[in-house]
Amino acid sequence: MKIETIIQKFKTTRTTTEKLCKPLAIEDYSVQPNENVSPPKWHLAHSTWFFEQFILIQFDKNYDVFHEDFGFLFNSYYNNAGKRVLQLNRGLMTRPTVAKVLDYRKHVTDKIIALVENNTSDKILNLIEIGINHEEQHQELLAYDIKFILGNQPTFPSFQTELFLKEETQKAEFIKIDEGVYEIGHTTTDFCFDNELGSHKSYIQNTEIANKLVTNAEFIEFINAAGYEDFNLWHSEGWDFINKNNIKAPLYWFKIEEEWHYYNFDKLEKVNPNLPVMHCSYYEAYAFAEWKGMRLPSEFEWEIASEKLNYGQLWEWTSSAYLPYHNFKKAAGALGEYNGKFMVNQHVLRGSSIATPKNHSRKTYRNFFHTSSRWIFSGIRLAKK
Amino acid sequence: MKIETIIQKFKTTRTTTEKLCKPLAIEDYSVQPNENVSPPKWHLAHSTWFFEQFILIQFDKNYDVFHEDFGFLFNSYYNNAGKRVLQLNRGLMTRPTVAKVLDYRKHVTDKIIALVENNTSDKILNLIEIGINHEEQHQELLAYDIKFILGNQPTFPSFQTELFLKEETQKAEFIKIDEGVYEIGHTTTDFCFDNELGSHKSYIQNTEIANKLVTNAEFIEFINAAGYEDFNLWHSEGWDFINKNNIKAPLYWFKIEEEWHYYNFDKLEKVNPNLPVMHCSYYEAYAFAEWKGMRLPSEFEWEIASEKLNYGQLWEWTSSAYLPYHNFKKAAGALGEYNGKFMVNQHVLRGSSIATPKNHSRKTYRNFFHTSSRWIFSGIRLAKK
Amino acid sequence: MKIETIIQKFKTTRTTTEKLCKPLAIEDYSVQPNENVSPPKWHLAHSTWFFEQFILIQFDKNYDVFHEDFGFLFNSYYNNAGKRVLQLNRGLMTRPTVAKVLDYRKHVTDKIIALVENNTSDKILNLIEIGINHEEQHQELLAYDIKFILGNQPTFPSFQTELFLKEETQKAEFIKIDEGVYEIGHTTTDFCFDNELGSHKSYIQNTEIANKLVTNAEFIEFINAAGYEDFNLWHSEGWDFINKNNIKAPLYWFKIEEEWHYYNFDKLEKVNPNLPVMHCSYYEAYAFAEWKGMRLPSEFEWEIASEKLNYGQLWEWTSSAYLPYHNFKKAAGALGEYNGKFMVNQHVLRGSSIATPKNHSRKTYRNFFHTSSRWIFSGIRLAKK
Amino acid sequence: MKIETIIQKFKTTRTTTEKLCKPLAIEDYSVQPNENVSPPKWHLAHSTWFFEQFILIQFDKNYDVFHEDFGFLFNSYYNNAGKRVLQLNRGLMTRPTVAKVLDYRKHVTDKIIALVENNTSDKILNLIEIGINHEEQHQELLAYDIKFILGNQPTFPSFQTELFLKEETQKAEFIKIDEGVYEIGHTTTDFCFDNELGSHKSYIQNTEIANKLVTNAEFIEFINAAGYEDFNLWHSEGWDFINKNNIKAPLYWFKIEEEWHYYNFDKLEKVNPNLPVMHCSYYEAYAFAEWKGMRLPSEFEWEIASEKLNYGQLWEWTSSAYLPYHNFKKAAGALGEYNGKFMVNQHVLRGSSIATPKNHSRKTYRNFFHTSSRWIFSGIRLAKK
Repeated sequence: MKIETIIQKFKTTRTTTEKLCKPLAIEDYSVQPNENVSPPKWHLAHSTWFFEQFILIQFDKNYDVFHEDFGFLFNSYYNNAGKRVLQLNRGLMTRPTVAKVLDYRKHVTDKIIALVENNTSDKILNLIEIGINHEEQHQELLAYDIKFILGNQPTFPSFQTELFLKEETQKAEFIKIDEGVYEIGHTTTDFCFDNELGSHKSYIQNTEIANKLVTNAEFIEFINAAGYEDFNLWHSEGWDFINKNNIKAPLYWFKIEEEWHYYNFDKLEKVNPNLPVMHCSYYEAYAFAEWKGMRLPSEFEWEIASEKLNYGQLWEWTSSAYLPYHNFKKAAGALGEYNGKFMVNQHVLRGSSIATPKNHSRKTYRNFFHTSSRWIFSGIRLAKK
Repeated sequence: MKIETIIQKFKTTRTTTEKLCKPLAIEDYSVQPNENVSPPKWHLAHSTWFFEQFILIQFDKNYDVFHEDFGFLFNSYYNNAGKRVLQLNRGLMTRPTVAKVLDYRKHVTDKIIALVENNTSDKILNLIEIGINHEEQHQELLAYDIKFILGNQPTFPSFQTELFLKEETQKAEFIKIDEGVYEIGHTTTDFCFDNELGSHKSYIQNTEIANKLVTNAEFIEFINAAGYEDFNLWHSEGWDFINKNNIKAPLYWFKIEEEWHYYNFDKLEKVNPNLPVMHCSYYEAYAFAEWKGMRLPSEFEWEIASEKLNYGQLWEWTSSAYLPYHNFKKAAGALGEYNGKFMVNQHVLRGSSIATPKNHSRKTYRNFFHTSSRWIFSGIRLAKK
Repeated sequence: MKIETIIQKFKTTRTTTEKLCKPLAIEDYSVQPNENVSPPKWHLAHSTWFFEQFILIQFDKNYDVFHEDFGFLFNSYYNNAGKRVLQLNRGLMTRPTVAKVLDYRKHVTDKIIALVENNTSDKILNLIEIGINHEEQHQELLAYDIKFILGNQPTFPSFQTELFLKEETQKAEFIKIDEGVYEIGHTTTDFCFDNELGSHKSYIQNTEIANKLVTNAEFIEFINAAGYEDFNLWHSEGWDFINKNNIKAPLYWFKIEEEWHYYNFDKLEKVNPNLPVMHCSYYEAYAFAEWKGMRLPSEFEWEIASEKLNYGQLWEWTSSAYLPYHNFKKAAGALGEYNGKFMVNQHVLRGSSIATPKNHSRKTYRNFFHTSSRWIFSGIRLAKK
Repeated sequence: MKIETIIQKFKTTRTTTEKLCKPLAIEDYSVQPNENVSPPKWHLAHSTWFFEQFILIQFDKNYDVFHEDFGFLFNSYYNNAGKRVLQLNRGLMTRPTVAKVLDYRKHVTDKIIALVENNTSDKILNLIEIGINHEEQHQELLAYDIKFILGNQPTFPSFQTELFLKEETQKAEFIKIDEGVYEIGHTTTDFCFDNELGSHKSYIQNTEIANKLVTNAEFIEFINAAGYEDFNLWHSEGWDFINKNNIKAPLYWFKIEEEWHYYNFDKLEKVNPNLPVMHCSYYEAYAFAEWKGMRLPSEFEWEIASEKLNYGQLWEWTSSAYLPYHNFKKAAGALGEYNGKFMVNQHVLRGSSIATPKNHSRKTYRNFFHTSSRWIFSGIRLAKK
């Protein structure tokens, strides 16, 4: 990419993150309801710290850190980059204030632009591109976390956003994949994360994949058929999970006077039966598929079928555990902590969602979450057994 | 009291609570670091809810509740007054906002004044007096909780306050109490809580009580003498408590380059050796007394000696468990939940502190906390064995 | 006491402990269902270790410890006597075997007798007397713990014992105590524990105490009147306790086809309405008294009334927190850990139970347990408000 | 298989299980140190219950269950077969006694033989074969669990067994696998578990796999190189696991006077550097491989290379998550719970161990455990990156 393009993309990304948060009340910025959900203020600061830590401190000789504590406060999990704040305590950090964090953002944004304009290098541009992609990931997490924070207020406050699903109106069909050897992984020179590299061959069996996501109407059928009560449909671990947490429907769903409602960035409203079902854990996606006599596609099947799929509304749970590709290589230093160290006991999701920034989506993208995750923008696509 | 006096006291109390919080950043209002410490916003709302629930809803026929959810959100533990928010989740309530809660305060304050001015009764005035005393208790808790919230920020922010201890300059002496039968409890017609009533005789042994509180200098001697490492000085439960929580000094104390510092509403500063030691649990107070070959006075000894004591800087841990007086009677309904149901497994503190509102202190006042409490404004007074 | 009497009593005590355990299966000896209940094997060994540690090792120059690990394994909580096994892990100690522990008992019993016969002193005799009283306490705990272990087997096995309550057939009356100053505490030269010493005066108010314990029939009335569902009757802490643990009746009670049954060292049998109610926590005793419009007596009231009470079936919860008497003095060294360090957040029980060894009962005896304890042989006696 | 062969194999299996336990003390049979380790008594009973529940109750019309509670007590996790005892409470079951459980075993063994001799069918023989394989799995678990129970006794008791590793004396080499499509899974008519079926093609990349397991000497190098302190080598989850549990060496290893010792069914003895390293979690196996610049083989690579591997000493951690094969089909009813419901968040181990019964090993066998498991007989084989 040209320098101007990078700078433009950098500016847009920084502005977009702030716009996303704008409708929040100051009170909403610092709270951390559980260990997966981070306070919005933390996202604002952490995505800034990334640029400060990995670019300004390394390449700008005259750079003074904005505040000596921020490295400590806003590192997430990069052990190589120093002592971390325990993730669970983020929600107790009322200071620095939101105003101070916005100052921090402006300071770092300006310094990065100055650095690039004065004296840049491919190395720096490359790191900025990573930083942009990193911040885009946090934009998506911000959408999840804001929804979780507001969706757990007893008052279900209204939040201004455009993050709404559309009905999938195409006729239901199954897309056939022929048995054979296929090439998997990222091969172009465009940006990708390290976990997509290591392009390699994979043998795929004959299979058929649905062209549409499972809808709320279908999921309500599953609930009504007592799917949440039949342990034969569930993984043992999933069965324990739903029982321990008393789960009987997707996250944000409430039954009011015999009708299903959900919170969707506004007060509780009736579930729209025609929209794709959202906010299921992997366990629920699996149980639903079992109940249908179907299964979830593997991430390789998905990648091969992707060009015929009209994806992009919700991240789609695959049957694949998140493991390194055969030729996976970790980057050196802190950036090497980006993906590799999470490659155990999680599942891959493919596609992208309404909360994914434009151009931050590609068919080789490997998203991943724990199998119990429900606050993410996840959906279900079926494959035949 | 006359109506005008009550109204005046009511207005002052409401204003004082708000002034106390004023130096906070909006971000500080919603956080709940542990199950004992409540968010400042919650105190502001809960002390208001008390007037709404027990006075306006009962006696003002035209009163419409300010918001139908607030009763649910801001009840603390009055089971008789309806469903409660779990205490531990208070810190996740970002909504209503602080601004909305201040509206709520103004609304209720105005309605109470209107009610009293138009058409009042002894019953209402009596309830307002309880409400004032209730809010005064929350003013004191606000001081504790604000200090805890700010004192756990990695940045130790500065907070504008006048809550500072003075050196106790009187000469150290012991005050003798002669063995005999004494009258204990509240006997005048002034306001008191129900736990002070039931005046009764008690037999007191010969004893001698210190005229001064233990100082930081004395407590540092205890630390230096390895008091925190000698289990012979501790209750078994206290020993487990300090070891499990890795406690080696009073709360907010940090050793920096071999010198003790503490947080006291400002950045970390050196411990002043001449001030009374503050923020010890009952376990620590007991262990300190053991180490001195002394003991803590009982609450009855304290009450008898009180007129010769220059008390009022810190609540003083007594050796007395919090139990009902012989003639204790619970009030009917929700107000009966005020004290009686806490009379097990807590200890009595007597006196008052710099955070206690003026006129909210009397020699018969029975304050009480769990023996592990350290964020309260507590101190140590010794008695001879 | 004369040497022969001591030796005789020592022998009887040692034998009695073993007889008590005899009907157990080997499998029953090692299990520890929770942190309060110890494995019977541990009681057998610990009461032996006490004699080894505090007498043989100190006074028998030729004594070789039976096994170098046993001091470590069978110390309970005497910090001064060296490193402890964590109490919760006792239930995992399958080795040493029961047979080995019985060898240990025989070895120590023989050595103590030899020591006393050859060359004794008042100091040694005094320690043996403490050791006997200590072992007698463990005999009582054995009864509790055996009942708990067997009463939690899904098969409710039968256990041969004579530990059965009798109906209290006297006519129900209240015994009056006149207001005034009374002397409290142990004053004779007979054996007592350190917590009974420090005889002192106490002022008692006019009161009346029931001459009988509360019966199962009365307690069933409380249950039927929804006493477990009315939070007004409970301490806040007690209310949380019963709800968290889903408690709706005394321990070992099960409702089978609409009738209350309990486990009482044999299969489940119907509750006998005429026996005193047993296995209530302090919280339940308090709530029952509240429901009756009564209260529990204080330990001083109990002691004064004791000569008119026909006590001895069950330990009786008092309203008194377990605190040191005014002149309480801890013994030096490990024996000083016997009582003093537990004097916080527990309640006193007075009287004795069917599991208390003969002659191990006296009116000044201060037993104590946490307010949540239900596996002890506890009962309820009421006093008028 | 012929009937006589099945009966013979059945008898041998039953006897072998009992022989394995024989050196235990009665006290060792009932304890459950954690939720993964079951009491030996439970294994004895559960493997018997399997035959009673799935064969005798279904096919022997005259059969009376041995004891009506045993179905409830000794079911493990077959939800379809009725109410379960919570796994964690198994260790509190002192009754039935060991003697009673051995009676139960004899009763069921005899009845099965009688059933087969009188009137059998392929269906029954097939179920007996499953039952034998099931009991063989429990024989292996018994070895793990006995070692864990004894290895956590402070006295490290001696246990008579033949479960000892041999040195791998072959010259170290790497076995090449050529890139291409291979057939994976069970294809013969011999017995296998359902998770091995669904034979299918898989594309394997060029790779090289070690012909020997990693030795204790090599693992000590890793420890000495501070491998347990370098987070770059670990999964994030593994890093948390070793830090939370303070893990610095394989299970059962203790450093005594600067030398590594381990418990191996006898007192603590010096680590033999030439034996394969044992009792590592997947996290540790992965970190070791990272440190070597290598990786663990996938289960498919392992299966293809297996014929050139001299395996059978220890189960070998593979890089493969435990997932269903493309054509996996669950059996109907309770037996369908055997494997499928565990196919999430575990890893596959291939090979077999010294604790695996003879003939219970084959190249397609898919063993699986959680990535934190350390008490199993696991080892490490490397592959080139």
